[in-house]
Amino acid sequence: MISVNGEAAPICGEMVERKGELGIGVDELGNGATVIDAGIEALGGLSAGKLYTEACLGGLAEVNFTKDKRLRVHLIVDRPAIACMASQYAGWRISVGDYFAMGSGPARALARVENLYDDLDYGDDSDSAVIALETREMPSVEVADFVAEKCGIEPRDLRILVAPTASIVGSVQISSRVVETGVHKLHELGFDVKRIISASGSAPVAPVAKDDLTAMGMTNDCSLYGGRTIYFVDAEDSEIGEVIEEMPSSSSEDYGSPFIEVFEKYDRDFYKIDARLFSPAEVTINNVRTGRVFSSGSINEEVLQKSLEGSS
Amino acid sequence: MISVNGEAAPICGEMVERKGELGIGVDELGNGATVIDAGIEALGGLSAGKLYTEACLGGLAEVNFTKDKRLRVHLIVDRPAIACMASQYAGWRISVGDYFAMGSGPARALARVENLYDDLDYGDDSDSAVIALETREMPSVEVADFVAEKCGIEPRDLRILVAPTASIVGSVQISSRVVETGVHKLHELGFDVKRIISASGSAPVAPVAKDDLTAMGMTNDCSLYGGRTIYFVDAEDSEIGEVIEEMPSSSSEDYGSPFIEVFEKYDRDFYKIDARLFSPAEVTINNVRTGRVFSSGSINEEVLQKSLEGSS
Amino acid sequence: MISVNGEAAPICGEMVERKGELGIGVDELGNGATVIDAGIEALGGLSAGKLYTEACLGGLAEVNFTKDKRLRVHLIVDRPAIACMASQYAGWRISVGDYFAMGSGPARALARVENLYDDLDYGDDSDSAVIALETREMPSVEVADFVAEKCGIEPRDLRILVAPTASIVGSVQISSRVVETGVHKLHELGFDVKRIISASGSAPVAPVAKDDLTAMGMTNDCSLYGGRTIYFVDAEDSEIGEVIEEMPSSSSEDYGSPFIEVFEKYDRDFYKIDARLFSPAEVTINNVRTGRVFSSGSINEEVLQKSLEGSS
Repeated sequence: MISVNGEAAPICGEMVERKGELGIGVDELGNGATVIDAGIEALGGLSAGKLYTEACLGGLAEVNFTKDKRLRVHLIVDRPAIACMASQYAGWRISVGDYFAMGSGPARALARVENLYDDLDYGDDSDSAVIALETREMPSVEVADFVAEKCGIEPRDLRILVAPTASIVGSVQISSRVVETGVHKLHELGFDVKRIISASGSAPVAPVAKDDLTAMGMTNDCSLYGGRTIYFVDAEDSEIGEVIEEMPSSSSEDYGSPFIEVFEKYDRDFYKIDARLFSPAEVTINNVRTGRVFSSGSINEEVLQKSLEGSS
Repeated sequence: MISVNGEAAPICGEMVERKGELGIGVDELGNGATVIDAGIEALGGLSAGKLYTEACLGGLAEVNFTKDKRLRVHLIVDRPAIACMASQYAGWRISVGDYFAMGSGPARALARVENLYDDLDYGDDSDSAVIALETREMPSVEVADFVAEKCGIEPRDLRILVAPTASIVGSVQISSRVVETGVHKLHELGFDVKRIISASGSAPVAPVAKDDLTAMGMTNDCSLYGGRTIYFVDAEDSEIGEVIEEMPSSSSEDYGSPFIEVFEKYDRDFYKIDARLFSPAEVTINNVRTGRVFSSGSINEEVLQKSLEGSS
Repeated sequence: MISVNGEAAPICGEMVERKGELGIGVDELGNGATVIDAGIEALGGLSAGKLYTEACLGGLAEVNFTKDKRLRVHLIVDRPAIACMASQYAGWRISVGDYFAMGSGPARALARVENLYDDLDYGDDSDSAVIALETREMPSVEVADFVAEKCGIEPRDLRILVAPTASIVGSVQISSRVVETGVHKLHELGFDVKRIISASGSAPVAPVAKDDLTAMGMTNDCSLYGGRTIYFVDAEDSEIGEVIEEMPSSSSEDYGSPFIEVFEKYDRDFYKIDARLFSPAEVTINNVRTGRVFSSGSINEEVLQKSLEGSS
């Protein structure tokens, strides 16, 4: 009944129509696929970041900003299992010839090449698709053909959103994964994420860094050390009790340093990092079945400052 | 000129169209009335709460969320006498056979069965109506017939929003009464609420409680101990000076404990509770006629924490 | 490609359509021009202030409110050189017979009577125009004819937004200049403002003051002592390094007192005030080319309180 690609299509339509205002570029590839450049050659902006993120979440979230000491992004998310896991999560390893990028966004729910869909009871059957690539290299016709084919759609019905990590849109959209990070952690811990009814979260928006590696560190730190989340679930208290202490990033043995230091410690091998680190700093879970509230973790201003302002 | 039912209709239309995403249920009763279930059998969510609230306020308000330590709802309200008193206020006691629920929302301005309309100089003449019922029991055809008849409309033109107190939508919409609570208090104190031009307020969103009674306590505490409001009025300073010290909840002799304790103290008899308690924690009134600013009250983090986090 | 007048037109259209809810008045002058009164005879409101501001920014910004201790306005702005300088900035001295008002908003980009357009590489070619006048006097047919003629449009295609300084809309729209104030300061310091990609800012919303002079002081103080901004730019670090210390209001020798005191000190002669004062309290500049973050200034709660709450 819910089509994340169907919901994302008009958001992309708005991006195309307002491209000049949003500071984005729009290209049509030889096979008819549309590439929306929100940060490679184009410079993007905060509104572009908002729309990019809302498209990635399959139209199931609302993104707003506050500017206090830091710029901060606030989200409310409906149907978080679908919005965050089936759509937003950057889980599709797209490898075509020499080209490689992590794919996120609604198209994943058409392609369904990832195991996690076995746990989600969700698939889209839209005849158009929206994929987001965190990359500094524009996708080719071959990449678009590959994605379209996996999605079972025509290339002309594919919209590809692209932005590198070190870009304004990159900063916004990665901080906006703060809710998704917690959903993913719940899934990793064996909690049935279909039981999450609704969620909200916020995180600082990292400044754009000097390169994508540095940006990866800073943008991750926004969730790990500055992310605040609440999940409304319908479950047994015991199911939540089993996971709550493991939920925040502080449950990880790799917690406590800016992400880039952890990454370097493990010789830039992602898979050596303790997976428990990838989670919001603060997690509240409200069980609507029993009225119990479970909370764990807190923001870590010290590491956040070291990561975000250390280089200034 | 302003039709609160006319403004609420497209908001309900959006809810019906996006029911799957919003986590709500939509039913048509035998008489053609539409029931939008935002928390009885359906589980609802934060976006559903936002739309539910904006419908209750007759389309005259904008509702947004921030997530800091707590989830918080922020509103701006136009024409507060109409939005809050003629529309949002839960003042219509709907009793049909064994069924009882407090009715709130725009339909009240068609039915006008409450005395307060004598002071508002406002009535709607829409040929469709939107009523919101805070209840755990789905309304019957008889209830819908009763409401439609009182509104002078056909049952098929009636939309009934339902959500229990202990639900996500319940939490959002009751915290969103923070501005209304102050308008109502001003009215009780004899201030002409038609002189309120515009208003803003915020309050924490209570976690969903284990039952409706507990939820009633927690959701009320959000305004009473955590609500912050500003009212722009066009009046004499003396009129404001007479009421300002009475405005915040702290002016009540029953102030200082979580609402549920007060309720129990009076053997669960609402009418024994000091009416001055029902008000925001903080009230600022800016008289645009003279530029004077009147402030009274402050948030009470201690009671708020006891009420909202005490059970965790 | 971007038409600030074209983007502002539908915002004005919404204001006209919802005039009753927004608390604004709409008149047609003898020459067919539309006057939208958001605070002279009408009283306006917060939503009117939001729409008024978004129209002034040529549809290139999004305005939201939070209510914490104070009411606060938060903006994100795309294409700040166009949105803030070519459109929002109150830089057009409109003098027709005895009538005088500072003109702001998109129409300036059609008239282009100000020197600053030489530095912006931007002009609009819309056949309709939106001008905003900060005034307590309704504009005449002659004023509308003058503006339309300068814009090269027909008077019937001109929309004139009006609101005095001491009004709800005045308070909202002047606090919403917080981002523009910094862009203007950058321009004054010789920085190429076309290099600003995107921006965000927030400022308290001043209570409506007793008269326009007092309002001018308080509304300016919201940016000068309470404004927080971030600018994303694409430039050389050296270009930013040269200006960053000069950016915040605290760089001015006239910093430290409520604006009204400074104004009186110079016998109400604007041009004697140190121009460096007109800037946000806090300025962060993120250079996306190098990843460097430059920060300067901080909010000054003491002066803010003296200015905004001193009279209460």
